[in-house]
Amino acid sequence: MKKIAVLTSGGDAPGMNACIRAIVLTCERLKLKAYGYLHGYNGLLQQHYKKLEAKDMHNLIQRGGTVLHSARCLEFKTPEAAVVAAKNLNELEIDALIVIGGDGSFRGAHHLSQHWQGQVIGLPGTIDNDIYGTDATIGYYTAIETAVSSIDKVRDTADAFERIFLIEVMGRHAGFIALNAALASASDHVIVPELFETTEKALAAMLEELQYRRDNHGSVSYIIVIAENVWPGGLGALVSELEQRTGSEVRPVILGHVQRGGSPVPQDRILASKLGSHAIQAIIDGQTGVMIGECNGEPVAVPLEQTWAQQKPLEPFCVEAMSQLVNATTD
Amino acid sequence: MKKIAVLTSGGDAPGMNACIRAIVLTCERLKLKAYGYLHGYNGLLQQHYKKLEAKDMHNLIQRGGTVLHSARCLEFKTPEAAVVAAKNLNELEIDALIVIGGDGSFRGAHHLSQHWQGQVIGLPGTIDNDIYGTDATIGYYTAIETAVSSIDKVRDTADAFERIFLIEVMGRHAGFIALNAALASASDHVIVPELFETTEKALAAMLEELQYRRDNHGSVSYIIVIAENVWPGGLGALVSELEQRTGSEVRPVILGHVQRGGSPVPQDRILASKLGSHAIQAIIDGQTGVMIGECNGEPVAVPLEQTWAQQKPLEPFCVEAMSQLVNATTD
Amino acid sequence: MKKIAVLTSGGDAPGMNACIRAIVLTCERLKLKAYGYLHGYNGLLQQHYKKLEAKDMHNLIQRGGTVLHSARCLEFKTPEAAVVAAKNLNELEIDALIVIGGDGSFRGAHHLSQHWQGQVIGLPGTIDNDIYGTDATIGYYTAIETAVSSIDKVRDTADAFERIFLIEVMGRHAGFIALNAALASASDHVIVPELFETTEKALAAMLEELQYRRDNHGSVSYIIVIAENVWPGGLGALVSELEQRTGSEVRPVILGHVQRGGSPVPQDRILASKLGSHAIQAIIDGQTGVMIGECNGEPVAVPLEQTWAQQKPLEPFCVEAMSQLVNATTD
Amino acid sequence: MKKIAVLTSGGDAPGMNACIRAIVLTCERLKLKAYGYLHGYNGLLQQHYKKLEAKDMHNLIQRGGTVLHSARCLEFKTPEAAVVAAKNLNELEIDALIVIGGDGSFRGAHHLSQHWQGQVIGLPGTIDNDIYGTDATIGYYTAIETAVSSIDKVRDTADAFERIFLIEVMGRHAGFIALNAALASASDHVIVPELFETTEKALAAMLEELQYRRDNHGSVSYIIVIAENVWPGGLGALVSELEQRTGSEVRPVILGHVQRGGSPVPQDRILASKLGSHAIQAIIDGQTGVMIGECNGEPVAVPLEQTWAQQKPLEPFCVEAMSQLVNATTD
Repeated sequence: MKKIAVLTSGGDAPGMNACIRAIVLTCERLKLKAYGYLHGYNGLLQQHYKKLEAKDMHNLIQRGGTVLHSARCLEFKTPEAAVVAAKNLNELEIDALIVIGGDGSFRGAHHLSQHWQGQVIGLPGTIDNDIYGTDATIGYYTAIETAVSSIDKVRDTADAFERIFLIEVMGRHAGFIALNAALASASDHVIVPELFETTEKALAAMLEELQYRRDNHGSVSYIIVIAENVWPGGLGALVSELEQRTGSEVRPVILGHVQRGGSPVPQDRILASKLGSHAIQAIIDGQTGVMIGECNGEPVAVPLEQTWAQQKPLEPFCVEAMSQLVNATTD
Repeated sequence: MKKIAVLTSGGDAPGMNACIRAIVLTCERLKLKAYGYLHGYNGLLQQHYKKLEAKDMHNLIQRGGTVLHSARCLEFKTPEAAVVAAKNLNELEIDALIVIGGDGSFRGAHHLSQHWQGQVIGLPGTIDNDIYGTDATIGYYTAIETAVSSIDKVRDTADAFERIFLIEVMGRHAGFIALNAALASASDHVIVPELFETTEKALAAMLEELQYRRDNHGSVSYIIVIAENVWPGGLGALVSELEQRTGSEVRPVILGHVQRGGSPVPQDRILASKLGSHAIQAIIDGQTGVMIGECNGEPVAVPLEQTWAQQKPLEPFCVEAMSQLVNATTD
Repeated sequence: MKKIAVLTSGGDAPGMNACIRAIVLTCERLKLKAYGYLHGYNGLLQQHYKKLEAKDMHNLIQRGGTVLHSARCLEFKTPEAAVVAAKNLNELEIDALIVIGGDGSFRGAHHLSQHWQGQVIGLPGTIDNDIYGTDATIGYYTAIETAVSSIDKVRDTADAFERIFLIEVMGRHAGFIALNAALASASDHVIVPELFETTEKALAAMLEELQYRRDNHGSVSYIIVIAENVWPGGLGALVSELEQRTGSEVRPVILGHVQRGGSPVPQDRILASKLGSHAIQAIIDGQTGVMIGECNGEPVAVPLEQTWAQQKPLEPFCVEAMSQLVNATTD
Repeated sequence: MKKIAVLTSGGDAPGMNACIRAIVLTCERLKLKAYGYLHGYNGLLQQHYKKLEAKDMHNLIQRGGTVLHSARCLEFKTPEAAVVAAKNLNELEIDALIVIGGDGSFRGAHHLSQHWQGQVIGLPGTIDNDIYGTDATIGYYTAIETAVSSIDKVRDTADAFERIFLIEVMGRHAGFIALNAALASASDHVIVPELFETTEKALAAMLEELQYRRDNHGSVSYIIVIAENVWPGGLGALVSELEQRTGSEVRPVILGHVQRGGSPVPQDRILASKLGSHAIQAIIDGQTGVMIGECNGEPVAVPLEQTWAQQKPLEPFCVEAMSQLVNATTD
């Protein structure tokens, strides 16, 4: 009988628990044993784990966070750490390890696979959606929902006071959350790294559009969605610049860590369930060194190195819609 | 300058307003005029319409229902009605008509196109997702969300009382909502028309799985999701049958019309925005007699007749996950 | 050191877990031991219990249902049952028993107190708010929220189709949920047992108001909220009657069991926390045979018999507002 | 026939629209005319107003913000401004003015009443609940809900990473939102101005409790809720101090403007409906110079000067519960 271990690593994402549940229930259905390492790679290094049973998976699908806990683990990058991890996995007679996380976690998984003979499978779990080889990542849909419902609320105040609001969303170095949240919240302008050129061009585009909307739409408020890490000098610099150029008050809102938590929306629960369940099938089929993702409604297996080596582009159909509906800082 | 008219027809779906907004804003951006017919095809027959301006689209994306109102319109099926509609459209000098609705609405659009020279474009707006040629329909994601959050609530009571619950969701003659809601809510069993054979097989599968979960998962509750219109004799017949065979109380819940309303979730707002905006592009490109949908992340144009002539299968990857995670009445 | 036991009984209500948590954490803070009986009074009869520790209360406040499970227990009404329960409580050396539930549960608690020397405290846990002696009951606010958000959704469809909707909410034999949900959802008419006289008067009031709103408010939809168990012949009878008299389609929606579940809203979590924590103080103060409730922002202790002997009236200020804003079937 | 005018002033609060609706519908029912001044006192100075009709109130109860817009208006403090306002009100033949807002708005109303003969009524509309003479203010319950659902999300991440989080909520100079949100979210510590003494005492209490919870509850995360404007040196200073003393990472989250918006929860819609409707009754009864509030479930009329002259204490029963369930920086 095969033994499967799973861990969650890097920033937590809503749906990680749904994914763990799918893995454990599928193992149970197929008579495999499932173990969970705690605190990401740290648990692997310290042989800190627990047996995962189907009966513990009840009432878990709807919970944010991860019952296995997560953590960054810088020391895992060393060859010594990978050797320890391999020893621990062998001691527990694990046949395959599933790592749910983002690209840093996948690098760790790839690193481990060079020191361990077992199968290694990655599952894309991050709100940022910045993993090449899968249409969406577990947690992405919930982060959009959290951002959109927050922007919906800010719009009430923006309209009441006829104000300019600047709302920073997460995304690490990618604009997926910002673009989709701006589109879904009917925001007026979006600033994403993929389309960003210079602060001067961005400011000109914002001001021109502000004027256009005031003239043509009778807009009284103006909402700008900005991805984190994109504006040189940070959000404060943009607020000052905008206040100076418009002569109006500009209020910044940083959505922050609320975007990582919360009960996963159905699309994340479904994606997590599909990927978790399919991962077990991939293990039975002998796959290793791959991420299991979903493209065009079908499961795919992508070599781990590809997931970070290639740049994932913003969804083209969203970019097309944005060009008519949300102004962006591009030419 | 082109003139575009839009109407919403058939059952309303969350995201119809977001779609109207995208159409109107894109028209405004491209210097086209936009008109809205009221009450579905009835407005077309009675020349009941209003001019749609960009400034009226503010604060609309997040609202359920449809500001153009909807209605069924049986008389539209006659040739006489189509002739009246054509005359009215010509009188208003409309170049293209966009119909947001389900397959009945598309049949109406196709019928009209045989009596009118203008362009006719369909956009898939229905919670049921039963339109061939598009991966999803506007309103589908919100209906899943409504069903799932309701089932999450019922599970609290089911667990507290250790009871069997039978939850009927919408879907007309398709199992999309039922399958996805069951998967996302960690329900125990799902009954959908696509996989249904006989009541006897379905009952046997339900009872066997109930026993399995009690034995292996320590389950104390048992939640069955059932699509409307699938069980011979209706929900009451199934409740009686189950109570008799299990000796336990079985509580039915019919989610009903709440599934049609509510603020659209981001995925419906985004889909509606993409399709509405692209429809204008399709009109400029000279297309007619087609539905604009989305497949694999890209816009597609599908001849209207195909949308109802072909059967849309349940999402295969969901069916695969279901086979491990949710029991279904199939062999 | 004192030993406290707690059980949840009758229909479950959101906030019961928050109340259990408050009891257990307060016990821990004051160095008392806490035990939980499972499945309501059944656990008491079968000596089915578990020790409750502070560390198990983490992440519990936001969960619907009850981790102690609930159940009806008809046999508890007999003297023999009370004797068994008393024996079991003494065997476990319990000093005080806290019963969270509605009036049936309180009758059980009172019955027990005649056969047991320990302290018995009731806490009002029911969505129906039909307990005399406390302004609100645990679960009431969440039930209103669930009903209102459902009615908000139905209104989208009602407006889109310009239809009459009839929405049945829970409440057992009281109109608290119906009145408050109707007021908060801007419904057009409400039918509650406290104000109900005859079907004829009720129908006349409904039809008159329907006409008034169509004439004066330009209303296109009409939403009637009705408490369960109030209309002679049931909801179907009212639908038929209304369809016949208005000549319009009337759609019924029965909200059902979703109203019992769900994450408790903050007001229920706060009420549950206050009452649970104060119950321990009341026990230390030597109180017994009372329900701990809240009136006018202050904790109160009400003899258990009073809680069911006296009729709790609808909130007068809500009735006043209703008289201007929601039509009701009264003279 | 009487003419009533209404305006919203100061920070917007969810439920202001529900209150406007109640005022307008009650006016319509009682055959009074209703007008709305736009942009707070600015509209009064610029005679910028619109007639408010019952039919425009449809679908408004559930919307955040205010359709009358709001604004600060510093110039209104001058005698000249009040004279202009009085002239404008007389020109429009207004008999009574209703001001929905916080204490700054009430000062403006009182100032106006010294230069105008008409009736002036205040209604408490602010998320901060810092108005003496009413148990709650319109918007308060929704702000608590927004804060609590955000903290619920942060807890997922805090647990996953076993981290200390510091969450700043609004409240101006009062701790109502912080206390209630902390209690309802099962936070570990709360810092409110009413109970704050020195940073040193506060830090000691936080660290002691952190140790206690780790030792006794097995807590892995630690969530501190802090009211805005309370910590000397701001949130950054507290983060640094805590990181230094605990040696752990501390993450700050500023909830910010999302707390002002959003669809009002039922309790705010109900309060707004009761107060708005009763205000018209108070006007008919000849009252002036008072705020209409609610105490112990009954309407009250409180002289405007009292509303800001007296300090409103934190809810005592919440403080009692806090003393067992949430640690606070007090002795």
